[in-house]
Amino acid sequence: MSIAWEKRYASRTQKQTSSAIRELLKLTERPDVISFAGGLPAPEVFPVRQVQEACEKVLKENGSRALQYGPTEGYLPLRELICQDAAQNGLKITPDNVLITSGSQQALDLLGKIFINRGDHILVESPTYLGALQAWSVYGAEYVAVPSDADGIQTDYVQEALRVSPKMMYILPNFQNPTGVTISRDRRVKILELAEQFGVPVIEDDPYGQLRFEGVDIPSTIKLDGDRCGNPEEYNGNVIYLSTYSKILAPGLRLAWVIAPAQVIRKMVIAKQGADLHTPSFTQYVAYEVARDGFINRHVELIRRIYRERRDVMLDSMEEHMPGNVHWTHPQGGLFLWASLPEHINTTTIFPQVAAEKVAYVPGDSFFPCGGGENTLRLNFSNASPEKINEGIARLGKVFKKVLLQQS
Amino acid sequence: MSIAWEKRYASRTQKQTSSAIRELLKLTERPDVISFAGGLPAPEVFPVRQVQEACEKVLKENGSRALQYGPTEGYLPLRELICQDAAQNGLKITPDNVLITSGSQQALDLLGKIFINRGDHILVESPTYLGALQAWSVYGAEYVAVPSDADGIQTDYVQEALRVSPKMMYILPNFQNPTGVTISRDRRVKILELAEQFGVPVIEDDPYGQLRFEGVDIPSTIKLDGDRCGNPEEYNGNVIYLSTYSKILAPGLRLAWVIAPAQVIRKMVIAKQGADLHTPSFTQYVAYEVARDGFINRHVELIRRIYRERRDVMLDSMEEHMPGNVHWTHPQGGLFLWASLPEHINTTTIFPQVAAEKVAYVPGDSFFPCGGGENTLRLNFSNASPEKINEGIARLGKVFKKVLLQQS
Repeated sequence: MSIAWEKRYASRTQKQTSSAIRELLKLTERPDVISFAGGLPAPEVFPVRQVQEACEKVLKENGSRALQYGPTEGYLPLRELICQDAAQNGLKITPDNVLITSGSQQALDLLGKIFINRGDHILVESPTYLGALQAWSVYGAEYVAVPSDADGIQTDYVQEALRVSPKMMYILPNFQNPTGVTISRDRRVKILELAEQFGVPVIEDDPYGQLRFEGVDIPSTIKLDGDRCGNPEEYNGNVIYLSTYSKILAPGLRLAWVIAPAQVIRKMVIAKQGADLHTPSFTQYVAYEVARDGFINRHVELIRRIYRERRDVMLDSMEEHMPGNVHWTHPQGGLFLWASLPEHINTTTIFPQVAAEKVAYVPGDSFFPCGGGENTLRLNFSNASPEKINEGIARLGKVFKKVLLQQS
Repeated sequence: MSIAWEKRYASRTQKQTSSAIRELLKLTERPDVISFAGGLPAPEVFPVRQVQEACEKVLKENGSRALQYGPTEGYLPLRELICQDAAQNGLKITPDNVLITSGSQQALDLLGKIFINRGDHILVESPTYLGALQAWSVYGAEYVAVPSDADGIQTDYVQEALRVSPKMMYILPNFQNPTGVTISRDRRVKILELAEQFGVPVIEDDPYGQLRFEGVDIPSTIKLDGDRCGNPEEYNGNVIYLSTYSKILAPGLRLAWVIAPAQVIRKMVIAKQGADLHTPSFTQYVAYEVARDGFINRHVELIRRIYRERRDVMLDSMEEHMPGNVHWTHPQGGLFLWASLPEHINTTTIFPQVAAEKVAYVPGDSFFPCGGGENTLRLNFSNASPEKINEGIARLGKVFKKVLLQQS
């Protein structure tokens, strides 16, 4: 009888079928499964005490403001802190260049809201971050995918891809989700040249930039673009930069930020007003209190040390347990490692055998917006303990050897 | 030179021009202005101590979970608490009927995302909540507006309005924003009959339902619809119900909830995944800790007492200071009162004179999606102290008398 209307409502929800990942993850939530499928930070590194102290101070000194409605742009002292950090990295910005969002996922959604009309193309790396595809497909985005190698997006193919006049170029410069790969400085510069030449903005999504364990930091694309523009007091170039407190403080606060030309921020603010009015005042006050004295710069040292150890354990364990025709990346930071099996192996098809051994990954094909990658997979190394990583990779190696024997 | 692309990007941002309210509010942020323009709760009623105790307990006992990523649906114990509260009001639901959102504004946005295609009509009360129009216009919604009187939306006109086949009917049943008016029980029942007959869902937006100062509670539309459906264990009727902790706990936590048929919740969950992954775990844990022992039911007594006093002061003051041809509503709860001047007075045009006297309201016409209401205005009585209310209404009465003399 009831809600016949619900079935009649085609609309865009049809395109939002729950992702493969979502369904697979449900299989792997049992405590006896060692899951490399998620993208969770290690809870051991959450600065619980510092958050506790910050809550106490904020509520004591600023309770009635921290619990009240706040400006859509975000808490001004937090935006000023982001300006200071940017200045330390050589990028001049003002609070008018900064918007606080409810996680970077919301920044992706707001960009979709203000820029994407049905049928617009977005240039993306292939593979790319699944959450961006989820955010933008709702607005009717199509994708033009440019392949990556060990130096990130292959800029030689970008110019050709720009012929379809994409609305934006979307890149994850550091320790990419899903591949763990970093875009070289030369390629960043090349992308900026193309952005200026073709008049197409670059979305630089950088959740992991501060989590480098080895090698030398490469300047962010927005910093390089600031240099290109002569580094004016208020950035006004072609890059819209996203980063987050989720990986360097705690994801449960859902706090991230956008740095962009002021007129882009203004449009995002209006879109955000309709989307959730503003990000919680309380979590912003608390994050500001935790971060204000430079705590995060000290804290990331700890995170890097722990993640580096886990990455090393995973790399060593892969070396030991994987059959010879499995290949994987060597990420210099971040949370993820990417592996490829021989072309004829489908990592989704064999997933039930993997899950039966109580271990899990994310099949790689979901990260390819235009198809491909059926023989690839993503492994997270930040969340499990070194012992679990060893044990999990051993289980995975066992399944892969069996599968390769069966399917050879 | 740079960002020529930004000007080229027509897209839907053009429709998102910053609202009149936003610009006007900027005029009235100076501390010497008595503003009745906002919709802020009284900060004096925020339960700062209870929030402080909850933060301490949550971080001590559950720190690593409260700071970690969480499920898109929301924190299960909080959803269960909402089910218990619903059961006390006679509505049977399960956690599958509940989604936690980042404020009710996000619920409106998610409904837009899943239901509205460009050109779809939404049936709304006239005037209606501006935030809903902001959320839905982005998705290309058109509106069919049904006038209200002292008993809320005039259901005699609803059937005619349904001829344009609107996608949803949007109502604010209790102490409506902006008018302060409540929809009578008979009209709620009539709307439910029409919803079932025409197969059109009802969005019941109820942020103020618990803030009644006088008169008798009227059952929520979803509760009446549950009765109509025979009150099964899991609600599966035609109403999508929104409410929030913003007015009964604190808006700075940005926590609200949706109650709806499970298949609607599932679609909203997928949309929310793309919009912000999930509402902050931390604020959800904290709100649960504050609310779990029935604190909110005791706390709303205090809020009601304070708001009632302020409403009474405003009503008395209006009586004393307003010229005879100004009329206003008598809200039985909530945060707002609605006033009308003679037809030939435009409340936007005279606003600079009002602001010059250091007092402010929201001109009413922004709340009318299809035009009208140029002689109306909204007054908030929750935020200012009784003394300020008296003084502010006296200032306003003075301006209105002057304007009426000038324009008579």
